Amino acid sequence: MIDNLNVLILSCGTRNKIVQYFKKELDGRGIVVATDCSNLAPALYEADKHYVVPRMDEDGYLDVILSICKENRIKAILSLIDPELSLIAKHKHEFMDIGVLPVVSNYDVVEMCFDKYKMFQFLEQNGFPTVKSYIDKEKFYNDVESGIINYPVFVKPVKGSASINISKVTSKEEIELLFSRFDNLMIQEFMDGTEYGADVYIDMISNEPVAIFLKEKLKMRAGETDKSVSVKDESLFKLITDFVKKIEFKGIIDVDIFKVNGNYYISEVNPRFGGGYPHAHESGVNVPGMIINNISKDVNQNKIGKYDSGTYMMKYNEIKIEQTNEG
Amino acid sequence: MIDNLNVLILSCGTRNKIVQYFKKELDGRGIVVATDCSNLAPALYEADKHYVVPRMDEDGYLDVILSICKENRIKAILSLIDPELSLIAKHKHEFMDIGVLPVVSNYDVVEMCFDKYKMFQFLEQNGFPTVKSYIDKEKFYNDVESGIINYPVFVKPVKGSASINISKVTSKEEIELLFSRFDNLMIQEFMDGTEYGADVYIDMISNEPVAIFLKEKLKMRAGETDKSVSVKDESLFKLITDFVKKIEFKGIIDVDIFKVNGNYYISEVNPRFGGGYPHAHESGVNVPGMIINNISKDVNQNKIGKYDSGTYMMKYNEIKIEQTNEG
Repeated sequence: MIDNLNVLILSCGTRNKIVQYFKKELDGRGIVVATDCSNLAPALYEADKHYVVPRMDEDGYLDVILSICKENRIKAILSLIDPELSLIAKHKHEFMDIGVLPVVSNYDVVEMCFDKYKMFQFLEQNGFPTVKSYIDKEKFYNDVESGIINYPVFVKPVKGSASINISKVTSKEEIELLFSRFDNLMIQEFMDGTEYGADVYIDMISNEPVAIFLKEKLKMRAGETDKSVSVKDESLFKLITDFVKKIEFKGIIDVDIFKVNGNYYISEVNPRFGGGYPHAHESGVNVPGMIINNISKDVNQNKIGKYDSGTYMMKYNEIKIEQTNEG
Repeated sequence: MIDNLNVLILSCGTRNKIVQYFKKELDGRGIVVATDCSNLAPALYEADKHYVVPRMDEDGYLDVILSICKENRIKAILSLIDPELSLIAKHKHEFMDIGVLPVVSNYDVVEMCFDKYKMFQFLEQNGFPTVKSYIDKEKFYNDVESGIINYPVFVKPVKGSASINISKVTSKEEIELLFSRFDNLMIQEFMDGTEYGADVYIDMISNEPVAIFLKEKLKMRAGETDKSVSVKDESLFKLITDFVKKIEFKGIIDVDIFKVNGNYYISEVNPRFGGGYPHAHESGVNVPGMIINNISKDVNQNKIGKYDSGTYMMKYNEIKIEQTNEG
């Protein structure tokens, strides 16, 4: 048995469940170290060891993380926030040089995920069904004329996470107003259907997708899935498998999909643990276990579809209490 | 030892912690029964027994609840949502007639909590410091002229919970526009200070406040306190004690307070368990225990200020998984 399979989770924030799952899975074979720039990030206090670090945009941040890796003989590193994925993907080799596996896709792939229009172009050029998108509003107006797309549509920033600054618009006037006010907007088709999410693990040794967990989103709240139900669908497993292989994702990703009139459309990808991952985990998909296999040099076997369907996930608030000496 | 101290929690929703605390406190001396109109309310599955019931505005709802009480020999009933507080307060005697203690203030008091302008008038008339409020916009304009109040101000519905439909406005034009569009609005002073919350238990036998837990709110998210720190302040304990005795609250309530330039101002009251109650509980204030004492006919001793200060509460997402037979 290999030990010292120490894992570092960056910008752990409120993702206590992810820390808990890694600790449970390591079960003494290594420790979980967590960082955050705020000492009020509750997941810090789940970890075996934690560090409050500078904000990631401060000078010297990367060096701080690299020394935490060395000091704790870290074997794998992952981040739970988007801008940091770009950072660790960009500096992948600096981590690998000191024996740390960054659980992240390559830099170009990560950047494409954060640029909704580039992702749309990739999907379209490679023949994957996706959500019609425009950065050229004149092209959009022409397509409206031709009946290729109809109002309502969404206007949103090309780069931007969650549901920040997204407007549902019904007229050319509104589009003109928004485009005159803000830069880097895109127009996106309104998908009148059901939303699905897929948690996917792409083995870091074989580069094959080995786990896909599908859930139908039942209720959203503040941009997050509040309730979902696990489902299985061979056609969607195949679509996602083809997609992640084509784009060459690595490690854990979260894919958003729409289903409209019985057809699936790929919407966007978070190239990290999605906020809804606990549903997959509690239904039998063990991604921390797969990551630990990879850092133990073991290739994961294909377990696509090996989980319980018909499990309902319902979120609620848990709290972490930390005491100071003032009491 | 008295047993069968069965407790019924209505509209339990996502308040899993409340159900957990009651179960732990009863510790075999009775069961916790929970209801909700949705079978996707995660707190249902924490309870010893649960019922999916009609929506509370449907005919016959009260009879359904009364029969659940009889069937389960319920000793105390509480609700976690506002409209239902009015309902159980209004029908208090129907519950008491079958041996059930409704843990709620009297109907008039509950209704006053849901009418922000009536509450303002009560506070002002009784000399409690509060947030300046107007339903008469001409009176507000006069006070602006006289320098009694300044922009920005909030315009919000007189009745309405959380932060729904609240606008921060900076001009007469905006106020005119909002008042022309919507009915039943009020104008409220913008409090540029720190927000506090108080979880207060008023003994249901002695009618005395016996627990007050104070927390400073550090971070809000979607109208809820995301992070807070427990504090103690004798002057605020006294202000709250005087206030809750004057208004004759009963049972558990949650009071919102502002501190501006060193002075406290009472803002509003939720006459039920507040969303932040777990912070109080985990810091040593045990309201379920106090409720159970009351249904055991025991009067609670005054424990105001008996808790740990300097405890930091940080929320994170926990999930409940329930399986169907489709798997």
